[in-house]
Amino acid sequence: MNKTRYPIEPIGFVRSALTRLEAAPMQGDEGAPEAWLELTPEAAPGLTGLQAGDELLILTWLHLAGRDVLQVHPRGDLYRPLTGVFATRSPDRPNPVGLHRVSVLEVVEQKLRVAPLEAIDGTPIVDIKPVLDGNDPSER
Amino acid sequence: MNKTRYPIEPIGFVRSALTRLEAAPMQGDEGAPEAWLELTPEAAPGLTGLQAGDELLILTWLHLAGRDVLQVHPRGDLYRPLTGVFATRSPDRPNPVGLHRVSVLEVVEQKLRVAPLEAIDGTPIVDIKPVLDGNDPSER
Repeated sequence: MNKTRYPIEPIGFVRSALTRLEAAPMQGDEGAPEAWLELTPEAAPGLTGLQAGDELLILTWLHLAGRDVLQVHPRGDLYRPLTGVFATRSPDRPNPVGLHRVSVLEVVEQKLRVAPLEAIDGTPIVDIKPVLDGNDPSER
Repeated sequence: MNKTRYPIEPIGFVRSALTRLEAAPMQGDEGAPEAWLELTPEAAPGLTGLQAGDELLILTWLHLAGRDVLQVHPRGDLYRPLTGVFATRSPDRPNPVGLHRVSVLEVVEQKLRVAPLEAIDGTPIVDIKPVLDGNDPSER
């Protein structure tokens, strides 16, 4: 068995008015607010070319998630059968990477103002990718 | 500066006829083949509930990518201006997580047969997530 691990080094952190897990809506389209993505000085040159109006995918590290969870009741509903986490969007999963689609509202030096983002303040940012096609925002 | 690192532990590996980086098309819709996702025994219970026909997002660790790259010429075209990697889908980036949209063709114990997938044989798998809405496959 290959037991190699790969270290994620955050490229920045979410700055948000959301400070508690319970206050975070479950999906971005369920009322999530805007937030700032504050990049580290090292990663900031990677923002070159981004501008207001761009559609992005933000990958975060859900640092409060449980990494030993493999099955859940979807959306915490005990009436729904236990389901593998890979068939759900549960934050609890072996590698708790969050995936959020946002619009860029403003770019200021090494920060992006974006919405909607359901991540709490201090969430580490793993990566930022452009949506490839405005009409079909799939993740190829 | 917060220098915490988060270790990715692969939940499995890609098994594919693609064995060389140059043979891999640049995006899944540019002729990528099918592949097997072979989960580790530890992560396999997370597949419960997945079935043929499901649409998934596969997050991979692009283990051959350059992590110190922050700006590139998009698609390797030297006539295009240097652009921040977060404005491109370059595999070279600080945390080289690949994002691939696939359809499930077959589920066999701890393996999924999927297509299209442009990752080479042996690529570590970080996470598997369902597409939330068949009509609008956005990444909220």
